[in-house]
Amino acid sequence: MAERLSADARKQALGTLPGWAEVQDGKGIGKTFVFRDFNEAFGFMTRAALVAEKMDHHPEWRNVYKTVEVVLSTHDAGGVTKLDIELATTMNAIAKLTQG
Amino acid sequence: MAERLSADARKQALGTLPGWAEVQDGKGIGKTFVFRDFNEAFGFMTRAALVAEKMDHHPEWRNVYKTVEVVLSTHDAGGVTKLDIELATTMNAIAKLTQG
Repeated sequence: MAERLSADARKQALGTLPGWAEVQDGKGIGKTFVFRDFNEAFGFMTRAALVAEKMDHHPEWRNVYKTVEVVLSTHDAGGVTKLDIELATTMNAIAKLTQG
Repeated sequence: MAERLSADARKQALGTLPGWAEVQDGKGIGKTFVFRDFNEAFGFMTRAALVAEKMDHHPEWRNVYKTVEVVLSTHDAGGVTKLDIELATTMNAIAKLTQG
């Protein structure tokens, strides 16, 4: 099972993840993605959902038209693990491709 | 443009929509859908997203694993319109098919 990252490791990882910040007192990481329209926003979600399902590690996320607010946390570990960093990294890559 | 329903019309429409209730002081309607797993929940969202895009009327929604919380409102009209009732009806139908 993935282990919770130390505060230092978490901060170091966040340094490589543009737009992501600690949320919930460091128990999670969050980012708000803004796209051009619903098509782009839901396209991003669909690609991210396939990755999340394959990882068996799922986001908490809220979509309002062109905006997608994401929170990642590993509940079994009580905080942020490498799984969250991996999914956040992939989401940034998908968003970059989606936004062109 | 769709006109805001009267309180009476809204309540009458909700009577035909199992699981939906007024939220935000009657400015919207909401429902929490619970599925078996993420596959089902995101499958529901994908089908609903295609309908929403075609209607050009989009939900506010939050997904956490097998749960999808939905709020529908017509912001241009300042409340609930027939568009919301139509989308809620379709979402109930999709959920029923998804849940088998």
